[in-house]
Amino acid sequence: MITLKELADRCGVSTATVSNAINGKSNISESTKMRILQMIEETGYKPNFMARNLRVNSKRTIGLIIEELSAFTSPAIIEGIMRYFEAQKYETILYNMRVYSNLNWMDDEKFLQSGVNNAVDELLSKQVNGIIHVAEHSRKLKYYNHILPVPVVISYAYTDERKLPYVSIDDETSTVKMAEYILSKGHTKIAMICGLNDNLHAQKRYNSFKRVLKEHNIHFDEDLCVFVNWTRDAGKEAAAKVLKKGVTAVFCHNDFLAAGVYDYLYEHNMQPGKDLFVTGFDDHIVSSYLHPGITTMKLPLLEIGRKSAELMDNLLKSDAKYGIEGFEIPCELIAR
Amino acid sequence: MITLKELADRCGVSTATVSNAINGKSNISESTKMRILQMIEETGYKPNFMARNLRVNSKRTIGLIIEELSAFTSPAIIEGIMRYFEAQKYETILYNMRVYSNLNWMDDEKFLQSGVNNAVDELLSKQVNGIIHVAEHSRKLKYYNHILPVPVVISYAYTDERKLPYVSIDDETSTVKMAEYILSKGHTKIAMICGLNDNLHAQKRYNSFKRVLKEHNIHFDEDLCVFVNWTRDAGKEAAAKVLKKGVTAVFCHNDFLAAGVYDYLYEHNMQPGKDLFVTGFDDHIVSSYLHPGITTMKLPLLEIGRKSAELMDNLLKSDAKYGIEGFEIPCELIAR
Repeated sequence: MITLKELADRCGVSTATVSNAINGKSNISESTKMRILQMIEETGYKPNFMARNLRVNSKRTIGLIIEELSAFTSPAIIEGIMRYFEAQKYETILYNMRVYSNLNWMDDEKFLQSGVNNAVDELLSKQVNGIIHVAEHSRKLKYYNHILPVPVVISYAYTDERKLPYVSIDDETSTVKMAEYILSKGHTKIAMICGLNDNLHAQKRYNSFKRVLKEHNIHFDEDLCVFVNWTRDAGKEAAAKVLKKGVTAVFCHNDFLAAGVYDYLYEHNMQPGKDLFVTGFDDHIVSSYLHPGITTMKLPLLEIGRKSAELMDNLLKSDAKYGIEGFEIPCELIAR
Repeated sequence: MITLKELADRCGVSTATVSNAINGKSNISESTKMRILQMIEETGYKPNFMARNLRVNSKRTIGLIIEELSAFTSPAIIEGIMRYFEAQKYETILYNMRVYSNLNWMDDEKFLQSGVNNAVDELLSKQVNGIIHVAEHSRKLKYYNHILPVPVVISYAYTDERKLPYVSIDDETSTVKMAEYILSKGHTKIAMICGLNDNLHAQKRYNSFKRVLKEHNIHFDEDLCVFVNWTRDAGKEAAAKVLKKGVTAVFCHNDFLAAGVYDYLYEHNMQPGKDLFVTGFDDHIVSSYLHPGITTMKLPLLEIGRKSAELMDNLLKSDAKYGIEGFEIPCELIAR
């Protein structure tokens, strides 16, 4: 293969000009650039990218395993992580597990374990210095029994058995805030449309809500609670059930369920906010486009990401692989 | 350093058991696993991850450069790309440029060029076999003057000067569909709330809309058109201007602008859909949560991703680096 010098000679330019062309610098005429490009293709010259990459390789790289990039929580968590790492001059690369590609992913432990294994293998082969696992929702992850050469931090979930450092949301404190807000509006007959009852978020929100009512000496009526799938349609169906029981407020476990309650109200010529006080959870973007905008709890997604990155940074700096710190961050009430 | 055999002997188990523990297999008791883990930490034994990774490295890896992961278009484009590559047994890794971290990113060419350079260097150092650049919105990209050892495909944008294969949306055909739909509802005095006028999408939608009116012999009134930022607030302000002119329909260049028109109507006790026919563009998730749901054009994001991946696949299979095929895919009318 010809050398850089030979290539430059054939083009009738200096080696610096060839380097500049290869590296995309703009101070070269288009015709010179095309002449160099053509000569590179004719001679099969291979620019020395590895030298350029040595500089890059001296940086630490963190691999992010994203369970599902399309989950509405993922981009903001990733942004929180990357904002922290950019300030610390770490590189970040992402691996998307795409769990939604399997309709029954939550019950398919084999699929999830094999997804994590592939992600870990791929990221280790790319020489990452640490791995942050960004979950689709909070639950106990069972997939990190490997003994890995790099530290792992769990973002927006927990681990089972062998503990890993994690950051998630504080469902208890957040639900207490929301419940007390609803009570402060004078409501005492309040329905609760919960998420699926095998879900940690739903369980914690249900229990905390129940506790707050008891603390305020308000009768907790099991019949005003339903556990359903987290969708708009399920919210509408659930509304049909609980609204028959004369409630004045509905605490929904997410904003989609609340949107379903709105759908039911519109269909029955009732006005959300006026005929029924409806609250959501998540501060998903749709919550401010519903009419009227819905009162909800804002997930601290950026902060979950930032804190996860900080935990990783601490592990790398202390050279400890198995720190087991865990953090739960409260949500913020968005009253609309 | 001790060998696998020595480690296994010290733990009083077989080498197979140690391997299984390292690789996260589940058929080992928790106490054995902890004993092995403890011994690994005491002896400083380093599991041979490279051997495991050889298998992975034989796969082709495509690097995706994402301008902004938080852009609502990005996750679906990425999903389209990855769905294709999963079927073809390619690995995919993502690099997020985070352009929103710079408030004036669209005008800061240096920032963008340096972001692309970093992304390219990082992905090349990770030995990717090809790069797909996923843009935040369609425009002419100027950042790929490098001479790269791998092929590049542009997803949701075009390139300037030196042409690269690309896939974007067909704004013309899509606008024609929408304009004819509005006309079919009997409207002849139609306002247009456009995006920023230096934006390719906005220019194409404006021109195509104007052309359709002319073809239908309907007077095109420049005074009924405003070019504004793409936000909900801008849509509301624009509505205040154009609605004074007695229009019966408004064609908005995106769904946020349409949501702003809704805000204006609500504030003035008018009903969207009844007192004014409002259409959006994008089929952003909020468009179905507005009340009533808005008629819009669905961006073919999955298909843009799929087609971009297919172009890359073809380039890799043909060993051609500089194919210059381009595709523009029409949007789908979602009538609500």
